[in-house]
Amino acid sequence: MERLEGRQSVSAALQARQRKFEVILVSHQAHEEKLRDLLDLAEQRGIAVKRVDGRELNSMAHGATHGGVIAVCTPRPLTPAAKLPELLQGMANPMLLLLEGIDDARNLGFTLRSAEALGAAAVLIKKHLWDFDATEVSRPSSGAYERLPLVQIETVEPLDALRRIGFRLIGCVASGKTTMHDVDLSGPVILAVGGEKRGLSAAVRDICDQRIRIPMRGGPEASLALSHAAAVVMAEAARQRERRAPTTED
Amino acid sequence: MERLEGRQSVSAALQARQRKFEVILVSHQAHEEKLRDLLDLAEQRGIAVKRVDGRELNSMAHGATHGGVIAVCTPRPLTPAAKLPELLQGMANPMLLLLEGIDDARNLGFTLRSAEALGAAAVLIKKHLWDFDATEVSRPSSGAYERLPLVQIETVEPLDALRRIGFRLIGCVASGKTTMHDVDLSGPVILAVGGEKRGLSAAVRDICDQRIRIPMRGGPEASLALSHAAAVVMAEAARQRERRAPTTED
Repeated sequence: MERLEGRQSVSAALQARQRKFEVILVSHQAHEEKLRDLLDLAEQRGIAVKRVDGRELNSMAHGATHGGVIAVCTPRPLTPAAKLPELLQGMANPMLLLLEGIDDARNLGFTLRSAEALGAAAVLIKKHLWDFDATEVSRPSSGAYERLPLVQIETVEPLDALRRIGFRLIGCVASGKTTMHDVDLSGPVILAVGGEKRGLSAAVRDICDQRIRIPMRGGPEASLALSHAAAVVMAEAARQRERRAPTTED
Repeated sequence: MERLEGRQSVSAALQARQRKFEVILVSHQAHEEKLRDLLDLAEQRGIAVKRVDGRELNSMAHGATHGGVIAVCTPRPLTPAAKLPELLQGMANPMLLLLEGIDDARNLGFTLRSAEALGAAAVLIKKHLWDFDATEVSRPSSGAYERLPLVQIETVEPLDALRRIGFRLIGCVASGKTTMHDVDLSGPVILAVGGEKRGLSAAVRDICDQRIRIPMRGGPEASLALSHAAAVVMAEAARQRERRAPTTED
């Protein structure tokens, strides 16, 4: 069983219906009004709600941001790679985000949040072991962890399978000769972003259809964190998808 | 006195020459090779380096990421608002970032890192009390906290002063009718981004020359975190500054 903390995470999980809930713990001190929707949802689904003392909740929580709500529930299931074609069927121009070398749960959470907001259809994570602390991913994702399909892959085979059905694999690398503005990111694409220490693995780089860079302006020491690089490249892909030429009106 | 943790932060601070150093503590267990440049810099500047036990360093540190180096030094000075015109003199098209409602030191650190990488000339923070934990800002900024001019402002007067010398104040608001792609962000601009709870204050919104939004694609619940919204809008401004029309070559 996992623990989900905070109104936003618990509400998103209830709505997404991907987890089974054992109990939702609500502090006596919590504002009833703010939790109305959440409690209604729990009642509709027949999930037990238990009132507990605020101190008991504090002692269970990771941080001080649970806002009086903790849910005990099954882990959020990952989407098997084999289900991807089915999931993407009917989408006109799906944009996927591939993350490699991501270890920090909080950064993953923020990246999922950006991916959802900027229109990614799913996030693929290349990693042998799924060892993220779910509570730490969930909070900064602001519910996106519950809503966005997440696929763990261990080899590049699923990427090749996507390429065979028309996806272009676009790798973000510091040494890319072409900037993200000079490459068409508007069709079905997988945008691949690597960790800060090692970047993309050779296995992924080797099968990229194109390698691009984010134009950098600061000095030689300047760089973007993984989650911010991912947001910037997804926003550029989203811009191109809008098919609107930039204007220069004042 | 403040403590700076980690090779990157300490090196950046030594290079930026904005702080006075009392001592640099280096763990007996640290890799001498990796610290060569840092130790050379410290020697050039006549700063005492003290070898200590790794456990002693651990007990002083915020986290486990100090990598064997902690510096004890004066706080990094902020740039007074009155110095801004002087600082910006000679820059062709300065881009400034204004943050409001930012409370989280780590998010501030990441935002400074993005601001440097995407070409901001300085970051303005509207806040009455500068109560950030410097160690927590410094680490995620990857040195940008040491290098990028930071200005704390308490009223909107400094913004008006910048507007009088030709800056346009562009506010990012969820309800903006124009997207960031449809507004000219290539001249001297102040890009204003507000906190997630309250957005920009009325005082700032009222004097904005234009209010823009970042196009959002996820469902109604989807949103960007402050530091990611800031990165996305700065990247768009940087794109427009490159004056390169997007191509659609494959």
